[in-house]
Amino acid sequence: MHIFYTPDISQNTYTLNEEESKHCVRVLRLSKGTVVNLVDGVGGFYTAEITDDHPKKVTLSILNVETEFHKRNHYLHIAVAPTKNIDRMEWFLEKATELGIDEITPIITDRSERRVVKDDRLNKVITAAVKQSIKAYHPKLNEAISFDDFLKQPFDGQQLIAHCIDNQQKRYISDLVKPYEKYLVLIGPEGDFTPEEVDLALNKGYKPLTLGENRLRTETAALAVCFEINYLNR
Amino acid sequence: MHIFYTPDISQNTYTLNEEESKHCVRVLRLSKGTVVNLVDGVGGFYTAEITDDHPKKVTLSILNVETEFHKRNHYLHIAVAPTKNIDRMEWFLEKATELGIDEITPIITDRSERRVVKDDRLNKVITAAVKQSIKAYHPKLNEAISFDDFLKQPFDGQQLIAHCIDNQQKRYISDLVKPYEKYLVLIGPEGDFTPEEVDLALNKGYKPLTLGENRLRTETAALAVCFEINYLNR
Repeated sequence: MHIFYTPDISQNTYTLNEEESKHCVRVLRLSKGTVVNLVDGVGGFYTAEITDDHPKKVTLSILNVETEFHKRNHYLHIAVAPTKNIDRMEWFLEKATELGIDEITPIITDRSERRVVKDDRLNKVITAAVKQSIKAYHPKLNEAISFDDFLKQPFDGQQLIAHCIDNQQKRYISDLVKPYEKYLVLIGPEGDFTPEEVDLALNKGYKPLTLGENRLRTETAALAVCFEINYLNR
Repeated sequence: MHIFYTPDISQNTYTLNEEESKHCVRVLRLSKGTVVNLVDGVGGFYTAEITDDHPKKVTLSILNVETEFHKRNHYLHIAVAPTKNIDRMEWFLEKATELGIDEITPIITDRSERRVVKDDRLNKVITAAVKQSIKAYHPKLNEAISFDDFLKQPFDGQQLIAHCIDNQQKRYISDLVKPYEKYLVLIGPEGDFTPEEVDLALNKGYKPLTLGENRLRTETAALAVCFEINYLNR
């Protein structure tokens, strides 16, 4: 099954851009008459036939459309401090896309060593995972934002924060949330959130969660949250 | 907290090997009188003081020992086909060690593109994760073995196989196993197990499991199993 990501699809025909066309004809060796699949990132799953295999502008004719393809029964937004080693952030994005996530926001915290992220590169990782794992919905990657500014944004759902400070009663996600809702979870940087940041979040209504006894890296904690929320919504 | 992996510890004093000594003195800049921690990989968590900071043979004096440190309440053995790109296998080992796993066996299957793995390199990844996540137990990495030979080995516990063939009723791990037991889970290669391999496992008493609708990469499926088994044993 060959999948192409076509966010701007709107007609009964679609023409791949030069890069995708080259990939289609030169790398995948697909030719006229071949049936492929397209996903638009907003739930549309298309079956299409190659009607012109021009290596610079492959034209496709849409044969069938499924909307809300594998629509998720909940909404998960994870706001995570980007890791110092960006590879770790990238694999979190790849794995979270495979397991199921709706929105990601890189947050710059007091102890963040990395304060800049390249959205385009991270989005390519997400798109590749969308195609590889056959997802019709493309997770939304927001621009990096400071922790304080992020907390000022409204969110209509269940808000949680994962931190390692031992001064308070933390509970498992399974004890904190109900299924089929919207969730926003904050994950800190290597070195954790500062006590001030945690207090700020708690005052905004975030509930402190524990992921268990294990000491997890930032990206592992973020993926553990992704797994647990999806598990609770099966 | 500085952790050293000392599998051969036995006395009240311990001398780090040349590599670890150099790391301790030259990189971490630790000196005489500094208190560090040691893990022996079999449950021992030691507190020790540096009594000699010689850059080639650091000597430590044991101050305290905790046995069965964070002993796990279940036993998880995952047998997984090593990925074509060994980096994916390595990150699975790192993350599984953080989350909790007891034994890993690379299995060479009919469709395995990678048929050789370097144990020493993979063990270094596990050991680094053991130290980083403060684990007193070091997961056991077995030598790669053919799928057929692996199935001939006895296992006293619950045996599961994850595969993508749609010809049979598969159930969630949570519907298949009880907590606090021993689990052995088979994960196939890119391209999945062959129908013959699946039948062979089923005839050996393995139960087929599903990880849900998502199409997961080999290493993601293996980690999802690790997440779910640990979750069910909280």
